[in-house]
Parts: sequence; C-alpha cells; structure tokens
Amino acid sequence: MEIAELGEFGLIRRLTEQIELKNPETKHGVGDDCAVLEFEAGRQVLVTTDLLLEGVHFDLQYMPLKHLGYKSAIANLSDIYAMNGRPRQMTVSLGLSKRFTVEDMEEFYAGLRLACEAHSCDIVGGDTSASMTGLTISITCIGDARPEDVVYRNGAKDTDLICVTGDLGAAYMGLQLLEREKSVYNQQLREAQQRGEKLDSLPPFQPDFSGREYLLERQLKPEARKDIIEALAKEGIRPTAMMDISDGLSSELHHICTQSHTGCRIYEERLPLDYQTAVLAEELNMNVTTCALNGGEDYELLFTVPLTEHDRIVTIPGIKVIGHITKPELGLQLVCRDGVEMELKAQGWKAI
Amino acid sequence: MEIAELGEFGLIRRLTEQIELKNPETKHGVGDDCAVLEFEAGRQVLVTTDLLLEGVHFDLQYMPLKHLGYKSAIANLSDIYAMNGRPRQMTVSLGLSKRFTVEDMEEFYAGLRLACEAHSCDIVGGDTSASMTGLTISITCIGDARPEDVVYRNGAKDTDLICVTGDLGAAYMGLQLLEREKSVYNQQLREAQQRGEKLDSLPPFQPDFSGREYLLERQLKPEARKDIIEALAKEGIRPTAMMDISDGLSSELHHICTQSHTGCRIYEERLPLDYQTAVLAEELNMNVTTCALNGGEDYELLFTVPLTEHDRIVTIPGIKVIGHITKPELGLQLVCRDGVEMELKAQGWKAI
Repeated sequence: MEIAELGEFGLIRRLTEQIELKNPETKHGVGDDCAVLEFEAGRQVLVTTDLLLEGVHFDLQYMPLKHLGYKSAIANLSDIYAMNGRPRQMTVSLGLSKRFTVEDMEEFYAGLRLACEAHSCDIVGGDTSASMTGLTISITCIGDARPEDVVYRNGAKDTDLICVTGDLGAAYMGLQLLEREKSVYNQQLREAQQRGEKLDSLPPFQPDFSGREYLLERQLKPEARKDIIEALAKEGIRPTAMMDISDGLSSELHHICTQSHTGCRIYEERLPLDYQTAVLAEELNMNVTTCALNGGEDYELLFTVPLTEHDRIVTIPGIKVIGHITKPELGLQLVCRDGVEMELKAQGWKAI
Repeated sequence: MEIAELGEFGLIRRLTEQIELKNPETKHGVGDDCAVLEFEAGRQVLVTTDLLLEGVHFDLQYMPLKHLGYKSAIANLSDIYAMNGRPRQMTVSLGLSKRFTVEDMEEFYAGLRLACEAHSCDIVGGDTSASMTGLTISITCIGDARPEDVVYRNGAKDTDLICVTGDLGAAYMGLQLLEREKSVYNQQLREAQQRGEKLDSLPPFQPDFSGREYLLERQLKPEARKDIIEALAKEGIRPTAMMDISDGLSSELHHICTQSHTGCRIYEERLPLDYQTAVLAEELNMNVTTCALNGGEDYELLFTVPLTEHDRIVTIPGIKVIGHITKPELGLQLVCRDGVEMELKAQGWKAI
C-alpha cells in the first residue's frame, strides 16, 4: 500500500496502534505535541522531536543557515509550550554532506544557541554524521511542567472558546514570496547561460522585499509563544486543550476536535490576519482565508478555554477568540463572512 | 574550512565548546554516551540520540527493514546501558521517500518493537516526514539510573583493568561478507543485461553463507548488553568508566583515556575474537587485529574496574580483561603477540 493512501496521520496511527506503554512513569505516548513522563511525583517531563530534511522542510537557496538553526530550535520549543511546559534541554543531530563547511555549521549552531538562550534551554547532546545527500536535522527537546499544568489536545469541551495567538498565514506568504523571487533569479541565470555570459559577471540579485519584511521574518525567523504561556499562567488561566499551529489551523482543529470528541465553529471574520498577508494574497490571486487555515509554520498557539474565562482572556494582548467548541455531531464548521457555513477540511503531510 | 580537516570529534568539539549549561537539573551535557539530567534527587534521566542515514549507515539491498528497525533501536539502547542505566522511553523519527510502502514501515516497526519489548522500553513519540532521498531514521532514547550508579567515560584510574564483553570485529566481517556478495550479485545483473536477458528470468541469487551465520547475525541483528549490566549489578561491581563499542575499540579507548586523563596498555593476544571472524579475515587477506580494533558496530561494552575487582570480574561469563589503564604519559599502547608495542590510532567518522 502506498503511504499516500494513508497520509501522514493514518501512517502514524497504523504504525503506533500496536504499541503498549508498560513503564509506570510513561504517562502519555504518541498523539500529542509531546510525550509525558513522570519520574517524580509533582513534576512531569515532556519530550518532543522533529525531523527537518533539506528539499522538504527548507531550501538553502534562500534560508540562511543561522536562521535555519534558529527556526529548527523554535519548532521544537513551540511543542513544549503547546503542552504548557517549560523547555529545559535539547539534543541536536546533523547529517552533513561534503558541501558544508565548518563555518556553515558554526552559523547553524549560532542560530540554534540564540533560540536556546532566549528560551533557557540547554543543548546537551546529539549526533553528527556524514550524509550522501543534503542536510538532515533532527532535534529532540525536553521540557517540564507540574502535572496539573500539562495541557493535552483532548480536553476541549462543548461551549469552550477557541483562541489563537498572533496572526496566521504570514509564514506561508513569506514562503510564496521567497519561492517567487527564487524562480525569477533562476530564470535570469538560465537566460544569462543561454547568452553565454559568465555567471559571476552578473549583477548581484537583490530582490526588493520592502514592505514585506514581516512576511519574511515569519518564514525565516518564527518565534515560540513563551510570552503567551507566561501571560496565561499570570492570569491563572489553564487552557482545556492546546497545541501549536505548525501544519495549519484547519489541520490542528481537526486534531483537537478528534481527540476531544467535539465539533467546532469558527468565524472567518475573526481569523487574525496581518495586513501584509492580505495584500500579498490579493497580489498572488490567492484566497487569504485558505492561507490562514492551511498555511502552516506559524508556530502560534491554538487553545480552548471555558466560556466563563471570556472576559479575562480578551484582556490578554495577542490572543484572539475565533469561535467555540460544539457537540461532535455538528462537525467542524467555518462560518464565512457572508454567513454561509462550510466544513473545515483537514490537511496533513503527503508523501512526495 | 572543510569538515574533513576537523573530523567528527573535532567538529563536535568546535560546535559545542561555546555551549553553557544553565539549568540546575542538567548534570552532564555533550561528551558521553548520554546526557544526564536530574529532575528529582535520587534519580537521573539519561538521554541519547542517533541519526541513521541510508547509504551511510545502512544498505537496504541486504538489510531487511525488520532487522534495520531492530538494529536502530539497539544502537540507542546500548548507549543507555553504557551509562549503567535502564532504557525507559524512545522516540522514533522517520524520513520516507516515495518508494517505501506502508508494509515496509510496518516491517521496520515490527523490528523496533521487538527490541523495545526485549529491553522494556516504551515507544512514546516521533515524527514522520516525506524525504526527497532515501530513508532517514532518528531515534532518541531516555533511560534512568540512580545517581550513584551512573558511569561516565572519565572515571578510569591508573592500574584499573580494561574489560570488553563478547567478541570484537564480527559485525565488521559480516559487513564485508554482505558487501562481497552484493558486488557478485550486481556483476551478474550487469552481465545478464549485456547478454540482453530479462532480469526476472535469472535464477534467484542465493549466496551460500553457511558457516558464516554468526558474522551475519552480528551485522544484521546485534544485541545490547543488558545481561552484562545486570550481572555487574548482581556482583555489586561498579565500573569506573564505561562506554559502548560502536565506532571500534581503538576509537573508544581514546575517548576513555582522553576524558580520564590516562594512558592504557592492551594486549593483542587478549582481544576477544570469534573463530568465524578470524577465518574470514584470513580468507579476505585482512589483519584480524585491525578488524577487532577498528571494526565498529559491535555494540559490546568497554569498561574499566579497579584492579582489586580482578578475581570477581573474571568469574562473570562474557567479560574479558584485555589490559589495564596507565599514566597519561605512557600513551595508548597495543602489545602485539610478538611483544612489540604499537601506538593505538583513533579512528572516527570522516566526511564523505
């Protein structure tokens, strides 16, 4: 059977459904942002891991290695926050083909260290290896939390408010922008070659990104929402369900509703969008709502809180209520600006 | 600077020398088989990670996926034992190109689960991703131990006995055997193609491995030495330094002596060799001592114990004393069968 038939989530389910958890300190295994271990009463250890492959997750033609190091760390740190935990330690494995130099890897590590320092996370180990192909990055992050603070995906209840931090779709629009300039550049190179010009005699390629800086930053230097976790703790608000938005809002809502056995209803007009995201979507003739729902790589937080928290949650800057949880038989609904209701489609990773 | 100039260990040193450990529970970072964390007084958490890349670490032309799953787990479990710990949890990340089917991945997971069940280790999470190239495997294993039981690489003392479990070089000879048969097979294919024959009309390729089963098993289905860790605990013997032999005895002795600030003296005649290893080395015109010293992938344990433990250590089956620790100024010496002394050379991973 081809993997594409099952998709990413189907494959994971198939491979892990026969796994039994036997060790008493293993509190939660596959299926959330992190695994949860409790070696000690009163403190839980969170574990998350991410694999990043050149040509699939990043393109070094426009991704500087320092940013790549930073972003690789952020993707993992974000998963710890998504469980309402604190990042503590990280291991970093790298597969390197011969074209990478020592200086390249120092750049990568500089970005990695910057992110880890900002989030008080120690780099404690890893593995380096030769690679026949491109750059392979595998990071595992360990965090901790008090057991009563850990938030899973499965705790959303009917009538809970659905909240999203920051804005959505900008990282995806940043990627579109970079991909567009990359094809312009590659086209110029091809034309110069056809004219028989030497490539190093070409003027440097300097695309004009002015007015688009925010989109590039969201793609090249995303942040993990430590500030939100701290603000929620300060207010004494514990979300009923939470995860980070890495695959896109629509896909993440499916995870929360499936695991919580609920439906949901979100409002198109309430989706948080940056002005630049809307402008570029218009320019590229893309539907900005689709970008916000399915864009991915935002590393914002999606969480639910009881309806009774409404007045407190709306006072926290950077959080927007986009809808509410419903009974499961109502399904996952998007209420469009014109009042029409549409079913939210899930999207996951597809086999290449 | 090319990575080859620094080599694997030089690169790791360069990238990690600026890392400061700040979190109080981080007891030990980069530089041993595992990182050591202490979230709770009286119990330490061990973390190790390994990256395995197709074409570098394994060849699917002769490595069945079930064996690959088993071996990938063993490589990580072995690192936990090398710290004198117990494996507890594992995360598994896979990068998959399109040629892999769901059934392939079920085979891989069957092997993985078999190893984890034998070593009481829970599979708690991971990541799956598309890959543009071959199969990428990244595993992180978590273990635990009482703080007083954890054994580092840096505790060897002058006059300590150097011990090795099992036998050495057989996994490497198994690899030679498989590589030899692979080239015979590929040669037959090429010749058939030149004769214009259809490839599926060829008789099945069935190399005769009889009498070599042990070498194949060591390469395709290695074991992690849980039994030795249990035997040492039962005898109440705590090694002063320990690591597992994955890169080869010579390289591992360099790690222990460098970190412990000692020299060592081992005896060629005491190196544990299996009969099949010696026979195939002879047949392939290779020096069997070189294979034992530099072969790699044995996943045996190398450890040191105080001289006073001599009479107890020699009673444990599967452990052999191969020499002793010396003062650092004496260097790392191999005493050959003819009495001549040679310096032990380190070998690490090289850039491809």
